[in-house]
Amino acid sequence: MSILGNYLQTGDWKGEKHVPVIHAPESVQANELINIKLSIGDSIAHPNTLEHHISWFKLYYLAEGAKFPVELGTYHFMAHGEADMFTEPVVTTSVKLPSSGKLIALSYCNIHGLWENSQDIKVI
Amino acid sequence: MSILGNYLQTGDWKGEKHVPVIHAPESVQANELINIKLSIGDSIAHPNTLEHHISWFKLYYLAEGAKFPVELGTYHFMAHGEADMFTEPVVTTSVKLPSSGKLIALSYCNIHGLWENSQDIKVI
Amino acid sequence: MSILGNYLQTGDWKGEKHVPVIHAPESVQANELINIKLSIGDSIAHPNTLEHHISWFKLYYLAEGAKFPVELGTYHFMAHGEADMFTEPVVTTSVKLPSSGKLIALSYCNIHGLWENSQDIKVI
Amino acid sequence: MSILGNYLQTGDWKGEKHVPVIHAPESVQANELINIKLSIGDSIAHPNTLEHHISWFKLYYLAEGAKFPVELGTYHFMAHGEADMFTEPVVTTSVKLPSSGKLIALSYCNIHGLWENSQDIKVI
Ligand SMILES: [Fe+3]
Ligand SMILES: [Fe+3]
Ligand SMILES: [Fe+3]
Ligand SMILES: [Fe+3]
Repeated sequence: MSILGNYLQTGDWKGEKHVPVIHAPESVQANELINIKLSIGDSIAHPNTLEHHISWFKLYYLAEGAKFPVELGTYHFMAHGEADMFTEPVVTTSVKLPSSGKLIALSYCNIHGLWENSQDIKVI
Repeated sequence: MSILGNYLQTGDWKGEKHVPVIHAPESVQANELINIKLSIGDSIAHPNTLEHHISWFKLYYLAEGAKFPVELGTYHFMAHGEADMFTEPVVTTSVKLPSSGKLIALSYCNIHGLWENSQDIKVI
Repeated sequence: MSILGNYLQTGDWKGEKHVPVIHAPESVQANELINIKLSIGDSIAHPNTLEHHISWFKLYYLAEGAKFPVELGTYHFMAHGEADMFTEPVVTTSVKLPSSGKLIALSYCNIHGLWENSQDIKVI
Repeated sequence: MSILGNYLQTGDWKGEKHVPVIHAPESVQANELINIKLSIGDSIAHPNTLEHHISWFKLYYLAEGAKFPVELGTYHFMAHGEADMFTEPVVTTSVKLPSSGKLIALSYCNIHGLWENSQDIKVI
């Protein structure tokens, strides 16, 4: 049995600053080029310091009926104060999806671990 | 509730070629520099082609009583036949750990998704 | 002397499909949150198949007078046909910059290697 | 012309703590599975703190006569004091190479930028 699965935290991003927010269309056409924006802190800001920051996002897609999620992208936010530069935990990516399913976003805070959110996409 | 957690597959690496194998000492001293080797296919080889390969490993440490796993490393295997070069899913990393806990290794096959293994480490 | 530097290819993205395109404001305020979009193929499309694809972008910032570039982000495009899903080499990231300098984007094609583009940013 | 190429620093690892050290056989057989160890600080230790650390290594292979380097692996060292855990900038990877060429290692320090080293490999 998975151990890490017990540590993939979830919640409502309106009240929990670590939950990734997925901005994606609810229905799209098959293989249409779509933009998906991932962010954190839309409601409550998360710190961005060397000591405490969002390190990365991953985005997966789980097609309806599929046994395995497919990884769409990995996004590492690299500057957290180095030479007074900051990369914020916000990213927009572009993908083509063949059929209905579920977007799953994963984020990692260097202090508070792994957090997940998901959103259904209907392919019409 | 986590959805991805339901797709973190596990098993015995002796019979399932996707499960990462953790080669680590069972007991170490606090903050001692230790080597941890991660591999796949020690018993049954996994393909390494453009169409089907192990893409990456991640390694986490969950200290006893901790609420959050800490990421120790991410290792992307990048060549799967490009110009006849191949990177095999084997990596050795070096870490220092302060207290007893659990190593958790995660691997990603571009076809068969996410797989997990874990091993206890006793700090004496 | 650097060897890899001889293999960081450049060119005009209007005629060379591997050169990353940087979409960024030319002048910004110090520490203002700005969006930077990186893409490839704005003029000539690059293939996106298992055999041949853009694997990642990196984005650096070289402040005026600085000796060292700072890495702002790393973006791995992970799906190139797996289960008929595709991640396109387009990403938007959000950063805060303290002073004038140069954005440097790096891209990697699994067949045609490393490509670079840059754009000045004036902090007013 | 490449700008980043001017910032790929090199030097003798015996006197410069940022230069990656490549531990690899000088001659191998074609397509033999070989181990390559990359490290930093074999002679002079580099700090490993949140404020100042080695963030990642990349490893490339440039076959003799080839126009493009192929990326073999990317290795992110993720813990720099989080919950008193540390990932050291040392990694061993396993690859198969078809012909003679040059290994090129790249490292990134979050304060001192990009550093390169290389080593010839003879395929016999
Ligand atoms: Fe946090
Ligand atoms: Fe597989
Ligand atoms: Fe190409
Ligand atoms: Fe340094």
